[in-house]
Amino acid sequence: MDKTSKIPLYLQLMDDLIKKIDTEKLLVHEKLPSERELCDIYDLSRITVRQALQELEREGYIYKLHGKGTFVSPISYNQNLVKLYSFTEEMQKMGKTPTTQVLSFREIALDERFANKMNLAPLDEAFQIVRLRLADNEPLMYETSYIPKKIFPYLTEKDLKERPMYDIFLQDYQIGVTKAVEQFSATTIREKEGEHLNLPADHPAMLIKRFAYQDDKLIEYTISVARGDKFDYTVELT
Amino acid sequence: MDKTSKIPLYLQLMDDLIKKIDTEKLLVHEKLPSERELCDIYDLSRITVRQALQELEREGYIYKLHGKGTFVSPISYNQNLVKLYSFTEEMQKMGKTPTTQVLSFREIALDERFANKMNLAPLDEAFQIVRLRLADNEPLMYETSYIPKKIFPYLTEKDLKERPMYDIFLQDYQIGVTKAVEQFSATTIREKEGEHLNLPADHPAMLIKRFAYQDDKLIEYTISVARGDKFDYTVELT
Repeated sequence: MDKTSKIPLYLQLMDDLIKKIDTEKLLVHEKLPSERELCDIYDLSRITVRQALQELEREGYIYKLHGKGTFVSPISYNQNLVKLYSFTEEMQKMGKTPTTQVLSFREIALDERFANKMNLAPLDEAFQIVRLRLADNEPLMYETSYIPKKIFPYLTEKDLKERPMYDIFLQDYQIGVTKAVEQFSATTIREKEGEHLNLPADHPAMLIKRFAYQDDKLIEYTISVARGDKFDYTVELT
Repeated sequence: MDKTSKIPLYLQLMDDLIKKIDTEKLLVHEKLPSERELCDIYDLSRITVRQALQELEREGYIYKLHGKGTFVSPISYNQNLVKLYSFTEEMQKMGKTPTTQVLSFREIALDERFANKMNLAPLDEAFQIVRLRLADNEPLMYETSYIPKKIFPYLTEKDLKERPMYDIFLQDYQIGVTKAVEQFSATTIREKEGEHLNLPADHPAMLIKRFAYQDDKLIEYTISVARGDKFDYTVELT
């Protein structure tokens, strides 16, 4: 560390740790030295070390587990929000093998508020489908989908275990998604989701609500919970 | 609650609580009864009550404060990601009065990695500006901006306290933002940010990195931290 430089010390420390990660002197999921140990190793103040770690976390290089320490992050996924995308196709593009586990499948009747949101009538029925999406066997997203029964009357749990949902829509019903509206907000992971995502409850997560349409007809409403340290979404504005 | 209905009980409970919020029987920032009290009031199981509260939280109706309970959320802000927007203009459109506090202003030299990110050369200098953005005096975002000194050499703290940054760029330098790339991810609030945003550390937050350009020249890099319960971002994909 060059303490006389105009480059802030926390940036210098970040550089050194990033170099160790890039050259695999620190491996994915490996535990970093504690804040105190880093203070000693680099002869830096606690404030500087903390700032460097916080920035590295926000840059996606490391993740924290409450009470356990700080670890090197695995590769993260950036989704460019320019056109319609599907989990299956995006993972294949990255050379990953996408798989899906159907965690639950049931029929529910919708109350007025929920029906309005889905452009349906109160008491209309929908399939509620909870799925875990994985890439190379690593769980990445926990998704809850609502599919109008009157549009896809014969949807079964078995179908969903065998084929991507959008393939079923297209092959069995000749229905394709032509437009989607997605809404992003920040949340934390719930206990039940954490069990499937291998993360503690209260870990930061991205909440994505997708309303998918064929022309102006809503055919799917899906709420996805994605690990906050693994996903980011990019948009270009002009 | 109609326990014979095909409408799930948690949806029925959500409806009842939303009606109380909409009719102001529950006021903004008012504390909700505890989970256990709600079980008694509605004669429902803990699982059902918890699911309703978790869904209401994700729908933006309520927020939780660790160890303090659950409260009714104030209005939330939806930003439509279709074209360039500025905090000042968006708040004015909603009839809110935007203000900005400059929390710190300093010059730093950039290391190689940071300089690359900003299309600058190592050791180039930038202004690092930390600002708190408020609407009707309520703190909403904590922003750290990096502005290349060679593009805006005479920028001062005083300027930033008096005029919106983009007004300074335009009036004093004839430089306007023509394109921005924004990257969204989920994070949690840091202690120092929480002090300014009136939130506990570890509250969920949205992290927005903005790279703003005039044509192909990067003129600003800003990292914003926005309350997770107050902001969502919508994009339409075709």
